[in-house]
Amino acid sequence: MKKALVLLGCPESPSQTPMAVYVTYKLKEMGYDVTTASTPSAMKLLEVGDPEGHYIENKIDIDSCIDKLDKGSFDLLIGFIHKDAAVSYFVTFNSILDATSIAIIFEKDAEKLEDFQNMVSESTNATIVSARAFHNPTPLRVRFDKALKKLNESGEI
Amino acid sequence: MKKALVLLGCPESPSQTPMAVYVTYKLKEMGYDVTTASTPSAMKLLEVGDPEGHYIENKIDIDSCIDKLDKGSFDLLIGFIHKDAAVSYFVTFNSILDATSIAIIFEKDAEKLEDFQNMVSESTNATIVSARAFHNPTPLRVRFDKALKKLNESGEI
Repeated sequence: MKKALVLLGCPESPSQTPMAVYVTYKLKEMGYDVTTASTPSAMKLLEVGDPEGHYIENKIDIDSCIDKLDKGSFDLLIGFIHKDAAVSYFVTFNSILDATSIAIIFEKDAEKLEDFQNMVSESTNATIVSARAFHNPTPLRVRFDKALKKLNESGEI
Repeated sequence: MKKALVLLGCPESPSQTPMAVYVTYKLKEMGYDVTTASTPSAMKLLEVGDPEGHYIENKIDIDSCIDKLDKGSFDLLIGFIHKDAAVSYFVTFNSILDATSIAIIFEKDAEKLEDFQNMVSESTNATIVSARAFHNPTPLRVRFDKALKKLNESGEI
């Protein structure tokens, strides 16, 4: 079974937790075994938002995860990015795993959004899904669906 | 079957959508038929955060809901409050329904939190569940569980 890792940073944005559920749901539908690595506060939000565990099955603390990580541990990396720290985590995970990666970048401020996009594209070959999203998850969801479809059709995932 | 209405305002806080799922889950466990009335952006987050509809079954736009509302339409009202507008909605729904009510008040700023608590307790008999919550949903979840247990044991719900 193919394995995917979803990376969550600090949950400032109201879109992150619902989108993390959605991304996990889509990947499971495609046959992936999905693990979610997150900060403790992001994990609490995931647990409250999925009390019966229908969506999020495998959870791990982001720092414990990095300690155990090797090239090939996962076939696909998906990172949520809306802070500098999240860029650093994503770049680190990406470089260790050397797997197909998608960066989901969201931020209200257009300048910061561009900075994050540049930082990710300078340091990785990740597919970038980005939007000036905060409240409304629809632009991110639609762009993520398109990116996933494209990678799937090209045989990369 | 007893009917509960969950009221959601603008989703600025990352806790609102996961807590709305949790509240719905708890009420369904207690045998309630739960309807969620929300603004369009809050509804999009709910849909993305529960793509298979395991938790949130009945959704309605908050303004359409108010048009159809009568005394007795619901046995229990639960409102999420972290803005002035949400206080107004909650007070209006509470006064039309004349049912047992719980106000879940959350805000980072201590002064605003107190203002919201005062506004709700001056205009309603609602049980107030409040916390200086933003990222971490645990204080709100624990206080909500306690309030629900108390109302249940006293036969009010």
